[in-house]
Amino acid sequence: MALGFRALPLTFLAHALAIAGAVMVLVWVLYYRGGMAWEAANKNLIFNALEHFKRDCRRMPAVFHDSWHFSYKSLPLKKEVKKVVHLVLHAIAIILGCVGIAAAFKNHNESNIANLYSLHSWLGITIISLYGIQWIYGFLVFFYPKGSPTLRSECLPWHVLFGIFVYILAVGNAALGFLEKLTFLESSGIAKYGPEALLVNFTAVVTVLYGAFVILSVLGQAPIEDDDSYSAI
Amino acid sequence: MALGFRALPLTFLAHALAIAGAVMVLVWVLYYRGGMAWEAANKNLIFNALEHFKRDCRRMPAVFHDSWHFSYKSLPLKKEVKKVVHLVLHAIAIILGCVGIAAAFKNHNESNIANLYSLHSWLGITIISLYGIQWIYGFLVFFYPKGSPTLRSECLPWHVLFGIFVYILAVGNAALGFLEKLTFLESSGIAKYGPEALLVNFTAVVTVLYGAFVILSVLGQAPIEDDDSYSAI
Repeated sequence: MALGFRALPLTFLAHALAIAGAVMVLVWVLYYRGGMAWEAANKNLIFNALEHFKRDCRRMPAVFHDSWHFSYKSLPLKKEVKKVVHLVLHAIAIILGCVGIAAAFKNHNESNIANLYSLHSWLGITIISLYGIQWIYGFLVFFYPKGSPTLRSECLPWHVLFGIFVYILAVGNAALGFLEKLTFLESSGIAKYGPEALLVNFTAVVTVLYGAFVILSVLGQAPIEDDDSYSAI
Repeated sequence: MALGFRALPLTFLAHALAIAGAVMVLVWVLYYRGGMAWEAANKNLIFNALEHFKRDCRRMPAVFHDSWHFSYKSLPLKKEVKKVVHLVLHAIAIILGCVGIAAAFKNHNESNIANLYSLHSWLGITIISLYGIQWIYGFLVFFYPKGSPTLRSECLPWHVLFGIFVYILAVGNAALGFLEKLTFLESSGIAKYGPEALLVNFTAVVTVLYGAFVILSVLGQAPIEDDDSYSAI
């Protein structure tokens, strides 16, 4: 049941999609939605800051994936250094995610919008919580105080599977966020087939494709022969 | 990297979640949304018929999964019979999906609502198309005229992977649909923390959990020792 394809070309495609998606979000926020701010009379600018941070958060797995394939596999780094790269990148992603969520609450509170009523918000809180639990569990088992080799090798496939699960949820929740925000804007009068609506929908499509190619890269083979990073952690 | 857990208990959980989700959709449609119809003065009833059909469509993989584990693996059926069960169940799912999409167009056209402007509709058309392509490709390669054993064994992991990919997209798009419809209803005045909103959001949560447990079941080990169904197809 091996898929037997090389992951390297897919990682380039995933990165290209990540950059395309990030540029599309920036065009949306800066050109159509009037920019970003943390303190602003126009509270929507705080929401835009949120979009920016969440986008950063979603890009982190690609950054990590880069480090996995090019530093984990090919750079002559010690295993412990590679683990530190892994856990630091994910810590950054979690912090960015928390800043994004804080921006959402700040925007809602200052605009008298209800908090935590939508599926997007429920899943967002769930995902950041699962992500945090995954990080702490990984830190304890694989880094410090570190479980026995048996425990680590038994935990590893679950760590990978749970990571992929949380990642798919995060990509799906990004799509929910794009749809929710665009539905609000269309209710307030922007054209359903207008340029902004098409931009947002295509950004969501690019995000989903990006997520698919990241997962496909993870399932593919590493470019270097020495493919024991998983088993040797 | 083997996960090494038994799939059987998870399939019960997946089925329980499928039933719970189906009951929740029926309560929503029948109690809160006034029932279902194909021809109706109240065009929303056509939309409700759509919801019902789409739910049936999403339940099909569970039905198939059942057949996989209990007829593919444990019943003394010939391999060709098992394949027929597989392709017939998926054909039913595709037909139900098409009926659902037809109901959406019918509702939109009769209510003068624009078609195909939302992310949910774009993904829906994409998913049913990919699903149809997957079915035709599977039929040609694995059933009739049937490729060589080498071709079949090379195609099989991609067939499984693409099937899982389309399934995850379908579950995600179901969540988008719940969010979109609820956002419309909330814009029209239903309470954001009211019983209907909570019911719809929890239905979406149950749907996502259901999808996760179906995937987890697929990744688990079959209950019967004879686990060569994949390689021997």
